[in-house]
Amino acid sequence: MKEKARVFISVIGASKCSAKEARLAEEVGRALARRGAVLICGGLTGVMEAACRGAKAEGGITVGILPGNSRSDANQYVTIPIVTGIGYARNSIVARSGQAVIAIGGKYGTLSEIAYALQDKIPVIGIGTWELASGKKKDGPVIIASDASDAVDKALDCIG
Amino acid sequence: MKEKARVFISVIGASKCSAKEARLAEEVGRALARRGAVLICGGLTGVMEAACRGAKAEGGITVGILPGNSRSDANQYVTIPIVTGIGYARNSIVARSGQAVIAIGGKYGTLSEIAYALQDKIPVIGIGTWELASGKKKDGPVIIASDASDAVDKALDCIG
Amino acid sequence: MKEKARVFISVIGASKCSAKEARLAEEVGRALARRGAVLICGGLTGVMEAACRGAKAEGGITVGILPGNSRSDANQYVTIPIVTGIGYARNSIVARSGQAVIAIGGKYGTLSEIAYALQDKIPVIGIGTWELASGKKKDGPVIIASDASDAVDKALDCIG
Amino acid sequence: MKEKARVFISVIGASKCSAKEARLAEEVGRALARRGAVLICGGLTGVMEAACRGAKAEGGITVGILPGNSRSDANQYVTIPIVTGIGYARNSIVARSGQAVIAIGGKYGTLSEIAYALQDKIPVIGIGTWELASGKKKDGPVIIASDASDAVDKALDCIG
Repeated sequence: MKEKARVFISVIGASKCSAKEARLAEEVGRALARRGAVLICGGLTGVMEAACRGAKAEGGITVGILPGNSRSDANQYVTIPIVTGIGYARNSIVARSGQAVIAIGGKYGTLSEIAYALQDKIPVIGIGTWELASGKKKDGPVIIASDASDAVDKALDCIG
Repeated sequence: MKEKARVFISVIGASKCSAKEARLAEEVGRALARRGAVLICGGLTGVMEAACRGAKAEGGITVGILPGNSRSDANQYVTIPIVTGIGYARNSIVARSGQAVIAIGGKYGTLSEIAYALQDKIPVIGIGTWELASGKKKDGPVIIASDASDAVDKALDCIG
Repeated sequence: MKEKARVFISVIGASKCSAKEARLAEEVGRALARRGAVLICGGLTGVMEAACRGAKAEGGITVGILPGNSRSDANQYVTIPIVTGIGYARNSIVARSGQAVIAIGGKYGTLSEIAYALQDKIPVIGIGTWELASGKKKDGPVIIASDASDAVDKALDCIG
Repeated sequence: MKEKARVFISVIGASKCSAKEARLAEEVGRALARRGAVLICGGLTGVMEAACRGAKAEGGITVGILPGNSRSDANQYVTIPIVTGIGYARNSIVARSGQAVIAIGGKYGTLSEIAYALQDKIPVIGIGTWELASGKKKDGPVIIASDASDAVDKALDCIG
């Protein structure tokens, strides 16, 4: 009996988010867990907590890469807290530890994670987030998804 | 039905180790998995690989906190690779992400992890590693274990 | 005789850049040094090297915050190499160590630095770089400069 | 007229130290500055502050590699603050940025820096600090100095 290879998807977004973003994040978390993906995130509140809540509800594994020194900073749906103690420099680890990144909303912290992912050629799927299209070009480097299910499809498609 | 709270134990040691150290590490990994602990390590070869092999054989979860930029650096028994890209500064994350640390042999990298753990008041159990006893005092800050089973007992006792 | 308080300005941009960007960076470096600012950068080639060359030519101090483990990675115009060994996670240190940031061109690495600076409310002045204006709003969070001298004026104005 | 190549020496020790350690650190700082070395340290109080005070008194350059997010954490004798925001993971940067390390007293934070330096084959000179001699061997990897002047001599000798 061979173990199925796991896939790892990072979900990024702000620690304070709208109700709509939280719903989206929870749906993304649910869909990822149902499809057997391990969810990687920053481990805190907002989009991160909603995504973990969704994944946990479906029995998924959730990894929270925390900025601070205490495992108790993790939201209650994180199954595996990583205690980095390196502050927001941990954003680069959140980005790199996913084989694809799903970004929901977000401000400058999310932008730094998108930048790190793109620098490492990790595909970024976005819903209501930074698109980074320049004036002339129609399409930016972020792959736009229409909803949670589409985002998860696109993320899993990217990593083949 | 309440999920049992997981405990997290870091196992540290060199990426090149003796056959005896590898046997010890594998036994530590097995014992941790049997007792339901998640094994945290640096994800590479030597003591890290042996400990992961033991834990995996017993169906445990193993987290590899990698120094480099590639998930393929992880040994084959790592179930959850964390891709830090921060080099050996990741030693502080390996130390902090455990509720207790078991050190087997090891050189200066291991010493840096022991130092970080002790600085954060995380108990360190050692087998054939740095003891850090000063000339005058009989006992150093590292709790000495006699074998793999004793090390795991002491680690789990520490975190209550 | 009281020592004049020093100001610290980070100059960011790609390690491969156009001749025009290199000229701009060198002028920025010269202007910063003439006005007594310490130049902070990532210490490598391209925009970083050109800025350091300019600053050095005017007798300025240049700090290179290197990603790798070797001080010999620094370009020859770095007077103070900081050997981080943390890879591109060092981008957050480059951004934070300036009281203002001047961005010249650049790709995703530069974008991560801009994001970190903006997250920490450090003013970012840009020439031919990411503007981050959203479709609706005319002005993004990056302050646009017309040339090297304007960029340095704006950076020094920001920090009072 | 060729600029004299600068040397970089890290001085490490606790943020709370005895009056005797502070005197030693200040003398080390003075001696380093007189001999043209740039002093690298963690930028905070205790041994770090005393060493910077000594170096500053002799007109030397002092670099403070700060753990936190604010340049105002630096002691008043730091001429170049590096704002890492990565917490005590910055210890690896303090160690690596020196061509030799002088350790004065210190606890576990200092031990982590000594470990990182030794791992990178950077010579460590110690006064009243961790010696790391094992029971059987007489000499540990830390070069013992008798006083501040001897420590600086030994550090500069090491880097030729």
